[in-house]
Amino acid sequence: MKQILVIGIGAGNPDYITLQAVKALNRADVFFLMDKGESKDKLIDLRREICERYITDQAYRFVEATSPERERGEVDYRASVEELNMAKQLTFERLIHEEMADGECAGFLVWGDPALYDSTIRILQAILASGRCEFEFEVIPGITSVQALCAQHKMPLNRIGQSIEITTGRRLAAGQVGDADSLVVMLDAQDAYHQVADSETEIYWGAYLGTPDELLISGKLKDVAQEIERVRKAARLANGWIMDTYLLRKP
Amino acid sequence: MKQILVIGIGAGNPDYITLQAVKALNRADVFFLMDKGESKDKLIDLRREICERYITDQAYRFVEATSPERERGEVDYRASVEELNMAKQLTFERLIHEEMADGECAGFLVWGDPALYDSTIRILQAILASGRCEFEFEVIPGITSVQALCAQHKMPLNRIGQSIEITTGRRLAAGQVGDADSLVVMLDAQDAYHQVADSETEIYWGAYLGTPDELLISGKLKDVAQEIERVRKAARLANGWIMDTYLLRKP
Repeated sequence: MKQILVIGIGAGNPDYITLQAVKALNRADVFFLMDKGESKDKLIDLRREICERYITDQAYRFVEATSPERERGEVDYRASVEELNMAKQLTFERLIHEEMADGECAGFLVWGDPALYDSTIRILQAILASGRCEFEFEVIPGITSVQALCAQHKMPLNRIGQSIEITTGRRLAAGQVGDADSLVVMLDAQDAYHQVADSETEIYWGAYLGTPDELLISGKLKDVAQEIERVRKAARLANGWIMDTYLLRKP
Repeated sequence: MKQILVIGIGAGNPDYITLQAVKALNRADVFFLMDKGESKDKLIDLRREICERYITDQAYRFVEATSPERERGEVDYRASVEELNMAKQLTFERLIHEEMADGECAGFLVWGDPALYDSTIRILQAILASGRCEFEFEVIPGITSVQALCAQHKMPLNRIGQSIEITTGRRLAAGQVGDADSLVVMLDAQDAYHQVADSETEIYWGAYLGTPDELLISGKLKDVAQEIERVRKAARLANGWIMDTYLLRKP
């Protein structure tokens, strides 16, 4: 039987990796790297670096596959992600069929935690459900950017006995969020924090968390929203990409 | 200056510990263990075991302090937690004053992640704000039981582009939850999943996650709610304590 390990490698800081992930890295014969092209090459490099650093026996190989890109612009988001996942599923099936011998173990290295806003688990489950491939898989959790954000700001994610909502910038911009005391926003490409009505709301923002390029800003929205927009834009220009996350806390 | 490290040690599986946490463990001169008395001694033992396993130079010491207990029964929850935190704050201040020399480094070992439903960060911030103690502190994130739950069930925390709410059993029982597609419930002492109106809702339940005693049940509420209640009650009786978490996913 083929084995697949979906390995959360944490968000940014190589020391965020768990011992479970280190053991998993050492079990894999092959790593599938999904190349998104463009300037996210840096993320591919970091994956290679993590393998070099933590694998004792360097007798593993990499297989790069081009990751299909989601259609952008005026399309239905959910439909475009589902279409993307169908394309990814075909890519994954090809990798499993063509790039693994029976009895081999393959690893997918996932930024953060594979359970949070990542499609690898969903796609593998879909392949298994289709019956077109046979394999076993395991999931190894990793530290998310949400956890890095709280650790670096030295503050709890929740207030006493209160709820937390984790959502996307897209949903915040569309007003599709609940009434939770603490709201975590991920994947925000459009500065959706400007949409929050109460400018007394506190924001804890972070980018490139856990890396040497880390940026942190916190304060009331009325005081720091413009600064975040400015810093974010400049950092994105300078680095060619940005990964950021923030927590909004009710006044 | 005194240094305090708030170290997330992950949820259950000793391999969930991160390399950052291992490094932090090795920096500490003293570990403060908050003893809750009763049968949670097992959790204290696990903390000692983690130190033994991961610290290279065994020249550290433990200081046990009795952790005040929250008043139970018909009291206001938030007020009782705040009162508890005031008492804990005094305990922490005493430990920092009496049990650390200047220049020493102390560690608090926190189950899961210090940012999620844990008061250590909040209490340390309150002590700093009071001006009665001087110290620096760092937070080291850890794998939470929510992440362990998803990894062990091999499923994503969110549906595509949807939100997640993380809340308490108390809030679910009181109907104080939002409309999120995925609802994670923690600290549920009262089988609050029985309150969910739509019995087509899927539940992914786990107890003692990542440990040899791990229990996992999943299915539609109408099919498995009774089983979860029964298994939970029996396990709690057998072990003297239970730590469990679950995810509710809308049909």
